Amino acid sequence: MRTHYCGHLTAQHIGKSVRLYGWIDRNRDHGGVIFLDLRDRYGIVQIVSDPVRTPDSYGIAQDMRNEYVVCITGTVTQRPPESTNPKIPTGEVEIYAESIELLNSVHKALPFLVSETDTIREDLRLKYRYLDMRGDLLRNNLQLRFNVVKAMRRFLEDQCGFMEVETPILCRSTPEGARDYLVPSRVSAGQWYALPQSPQLFKQLLMVGGCDRYYQIARCFRDEDLRSDRQPEFTQLDMEMSFMSQEEILNLNENLVKHIFREIKGIELPPFPRMTYADAMDRYGCDRPDTRFGMELVNVSHIFANSGFKVFSGAIASGGIVKALPIPNGDKAISNTRIKPGGDLATLAAQYGAKGLAFMRVREDGAIDTIGALKDSLTEELKQELFRITKAEPGMLILFGAGEIGIVNESLSRLRLALGHELGLIDPDKMNLLWVTDFPMFEWNGDEKRFEAIHHPFTAPNPEDFVLGQPFTLKTRALAYDIILNGTEIGGGSLRIYQRQVQEQVFQAIGLTEQQAKDKFGFLLEAFEYGTPPHGGIAYGLDRLVMLLAGADSIREVIAFPKTQQARDLLTDAPSAVEDSQLKELYVKSVAPVKTANT
Amino acid sequence: MRTHYCGHLTAQHIGKSVRLYGWIDRNRDHGGVIFLDLRDRYGIVQIVSDPVRTPDSYGIAQDMRNEYVVCITGTVTQRPPESTNPKIPTGEVEIYAESIELLNSVHKALPFLVSETDTIREDLRLKYRYLDMRGDLLRNNLQLRFNVVKAMRRFLEDQCGFMEVETPILCRSTPEGARDYLVPSRVSAGQWYALPQSPQLFKQLLMVGGCDRYYQIARCFRDEDLRSDRQPEFTQLDMEMSFMSQEEILNLNENLVKHIFREIKGIELPPFPRMTYADAMDRYGCDRPDTRFGMELVNVSHIFANSGFKVFSGAIASGGIVKALPIPNGDKAISNTRIKPGGDLATLAAQYGAKGLAFMRVREDGAIDTIGALKDSLTEELKQELFRITKAEPGMLILFGAGEIGIVNESLSRLRLALGHELGLIDPDKMNLLWVTDFPMFEWNGDEKRFEAIHHPFTAPNPEDFVLGQPFTLKTRALAYDIILNGTEIGGGSLRIYQRQVQEQVFQAIGLTEQQAKDKFGFLLEAFEYGTPPHGGIAYGLDRLVMLLAGADSIREVIAFPKTQQARDLLTDAPSAVEDSQLKELYVKSVAPVKTANT
Repeated sequence: MRTHYCGHLTAQHIGKSVRLYGWIDRNRDHGGVIFLDLRDRYGIVQIVSDPVRTPDSYGIAQDMRNEYVVCITGTVTQRPPESTNPKIPTGEVEIYAESIELLNSVHKALPFLVSETDTIREDLRLKYRYLDMRGDLLRNNLQLRFNVVKAMRRFLEDQCGFMEVETPILCRSTPEGARDYLVPSRVSAGQWYALPQSPQLFKQLLMVGGCDRYYQIARCFRDEDLRSDRQPEFTQLDMEMSFMSQEEILNLNENLVKHIFREIKGIELPPFPRMTYADAMDRYGCDRPDTRFGMELVNVSHIFANSGFKVFSGAIASGGIVKALPIPNGDKAISNTRIKPGGDLATLAAQYGAKGLAFMRVREDGAIDTIGALKDSLTEELKQELFRITKAEPGMLILFGAGEIGIVNESLSRLRLALGHELGLIDPDKMNLLWVTDFPMFEWNGDEKRFEAIHHPFTAPNPEDFVLGQPFTLKTRALAYDIILNGTEIGGGSLRIYQRQVQEQVFQAIGLTEQQAKDKFGFLLEAFEYGTPPHGGIAYGLDRLVMLLAGADSIREVIAFPKTQQARDLLTDAPSAVEDSQLKELYVKSVAPVKTANT
Repeated sequence: MRTHYCGHLTAQHIGKSVRLYGWIDRNRDHGGVIFLDLRDRYGIVQIVSDPVRTPDSYGIAQDMRNEYVVCITGTVTQRPPESTNPKIPTGEVEIYAESIELLNSVHKALPFLVSETDTIREDLRLKYRYLDMRGDLLRNNLQLRFNVVKAMRRFLEDQCGFMEVETPILCRSTPEGARDYLVPSRVSAGQWYALPQSPQLFKQLLMVGGCDRYYQIARCFRDEDLRSDRQPEFTQLDMEMSFMSQEEILNLNENLVKHIFREIKGIELPPFPRMTYADAMDRYGCDRPDTRFGMELVNVSHIFANSGFKVFSGAIASGGIVKALPIPNGDKAISNTRIKPGGDLATLAAQYGAKGLAFMRVREDGAIDTIGALKDSLTEELKQELFRITKAEPGMLILFGAGEIGIVNESLSRLRLALGHELGLIDPDKMNLLWVTDFPMFEWNGDEKRFEAIHHPFTAPNPEDFVLGQPFTLKTRALAYDIILNGTEIGGGSLRIYQRQVQEQVFQAIGLTEQQAKDKFGFLLEAFEYGTPPHGGIAYGLDRLVMLLAGADSIREVIAFPKTQQARDLLTDAPSAVEDSQLKELYVKSVAPVKTANT
């Protein structure tokens, strides 16, 4: 029976007899003395064997190779002062190996060394995930993930009275936004289950059922194109509660997030600032601003509305906007080449729809340097006004975006982020939490000529903006909120609709006919008839939150068995072909895709 | 903001101002005084309103109907002595309602009363699950389920160092035993994911990865015919651990189960008895004996081997067996009609393959009453021997099964259970835990003429019975164990194979060619090459365990949103037809089933 874990042994164990299990991390022969690094889930400890002191283990110690699995007994000993290793917790001790039992060996060349996983191609790490997992990187991330989930559960259960309830994975298909993963039914030929994109409807039904406070660490599924850092299956901390105001929900969640940071990072977070959606779009051009640095956008439309610089005044005249991005010390740091067509900054802006980037340099003497047409269009008075509102100072570079408001915001906010990183304005140790509130209910889907819910169609309108039966507008605010960490949305939620007529009006607004609404969501509409309490909730993207807490670059680094961007599992090679007989039993058939010139 | 939950109010709150939220459970007008029962997740409290003491709430109190959602403020008051209700925890108090705010009402006739869910047809309860959930029955069961899971998690995390790891739901299809649910891939046309029947392979890979102690409350999927009390998706407590002997695993799990019973039932369980599979089959005719009562089977083959009663001696001669089921006081309780062809006991036995039931009555005077041929075949000596080993006593009825050993065991064990219940021999409050160990590795699949793994093909053979390269037999024991509660298997597990050659030999034994083994499980075989630790685990059927702890009749009673035996969700009406465009994107097509005369 194991007496200790390798990684737990310290000076306080000196003199103890121990029995350890683990993997050989390294084997060094120092002139007749063998040093083995033995690794388990908690870390590494040094094992020593020599022919005089431990003759019984010396022979086998010589044969140990990387990743052999062994059981070692011995005595914990103080290392000689010159060979202590302050870098690891076990660095003061070593174990003289009285016995080494080989439990399993390695029969093939290792695809990579466990101590070097951080330098290895990701596809190899995914294929040999079990080797990857033995390394510090993934092992620590999985432990961190577990610790985060544990902190969440205990806070919600012990301090807030939440109850965990499991909701189904085999659900009804109600695609809204992303594509569903589908599962053919064998018992009901021709019918399909869908894997849930979130437990949204079930958690609302739990509230109708009087559960009062529900949470779940819930698996969710979206069959999207995985260009960015997404996974076909991902995990949410999903919550819903009844009889609480938005204020109460935000406070409870603020305490939850503070608890997580206290438990995981030992950080005491200050109160979370709040910002309306309108404010966030105005000042940062996006609804998940990174507030770790300044460089806020400034609306300068009124300065150029009547100016002779047609690019700007024309944009405004056609309903657009002109915004400035002032960059302190940007004059020296950023060359014109980068701003002009073909330059990296112009290309970045163009990627988000900008037709070009105007700029203005504020020289050390206060003079401005820009293209003639822009300079000529500014009277001294307007220039002073521009300087005032952009807080212009010598050495500053001001970039301008002009045109359709969405494009201006998106392109300038991307430039802000990229330059904030480049210019070293972002303190990576800072943890800025932020609530963004007062989202609009809808955005306009120009292709389908209909409203589209910004959160989802179960989100309640703000009663200040809404009267039953009167039409929604793009200005109707929702009782919706996002929680942002360093510019990344880690969670979002809303108060929900709990009255049938309101829900029907929203379905109508997003273009569902009465029949479609009934077919898809009839069970929800009916539930509203039988005493539905006011309720609301939130869901956190667990993978992303853990990624940020781990300082990792990708959510794949915090998932035990992630899939590639092609939605494949390289370890087991899924998805795969299946037996014809399996498909036959399910009354389905694969149809070969029609090859086009592009495929 | 809510100050208290209804169900929490007791005499200690008298005099307090409270603000409560909940549902109207009942409204009684006692001659000008209105009594409302207000219900929330924790229970019911009585609200009072009359025109003198609470004029502000009296009008609205009169309008309150069942399941209206309200917010009530008032003062907790001692009930008059004659109207206290000792049956409920809040029975000593009532709240004089200073205000009642109607938050939502009921717009349709309720399909059933929440206070009467225990009398309602199950299909209605499933369709209106949110109403069902407001009732005591389901609400308490869901709370119990949550408490069980919490007790499991905390024991494993805090006392045993287990780490929770999430394993994938979108997996590779490796059907073995049950059918897989399949999911077409859109990105890889013609390929399919499968939903996991259990996380077996991933948890073993976690052990290969050095995770050491893993657990998960894991959703599992089996597309089986749901004749019995099964669900297409169900939940396991899934565990796996490295470097532990079977003895250590059983002890750890015994402590886990004791912890659950202590936390949930306040019961201190005695040490769990152990029984080998061979012993269980011999004494009870099944591998999950209900040991709450006696009536053990007795092998009487040696008594009848050479007897003149051809039914018995013939069965033995053709390799079968004769077993007795002695039923104390059965002579009076059970008539011949029930035992003879057409009788309920004969029919039950026939259902499990028995061709008939022989019997023997032991009269009060010690004489035996049975059919002539049986009586004639027994010498006095054999009769005495039969009496001795069956512990025959006056008033006893002995039933006999003769024939193929599997059929004899199965039919007599079913009879034993049925009669144990009927004769009141089972104390429903008894909680008998039992380990059954030393299962055989394989059973014979006569149809496919091959071995079939009894646990699963990753189970390690008992080294006492196995030498690498020498063929398995039906006698080869596995290092496998089940845990039984009152005759129901609540969990099962095994030590696993961790050496490639052993695994290959098992795959071969169950009829996989080398190529098939590589195609299906190549990744596992390869993992064994790189230093796999000895490991083992167990999985508990959570739904079934909670059902037994709740004293419920069906696992559907302990699942928030269960499916019917036709695998349908009656609430959301899943599965359902989907849009053609969805299927097209997935490169699949439904094929109508061919109608046969039977469908």
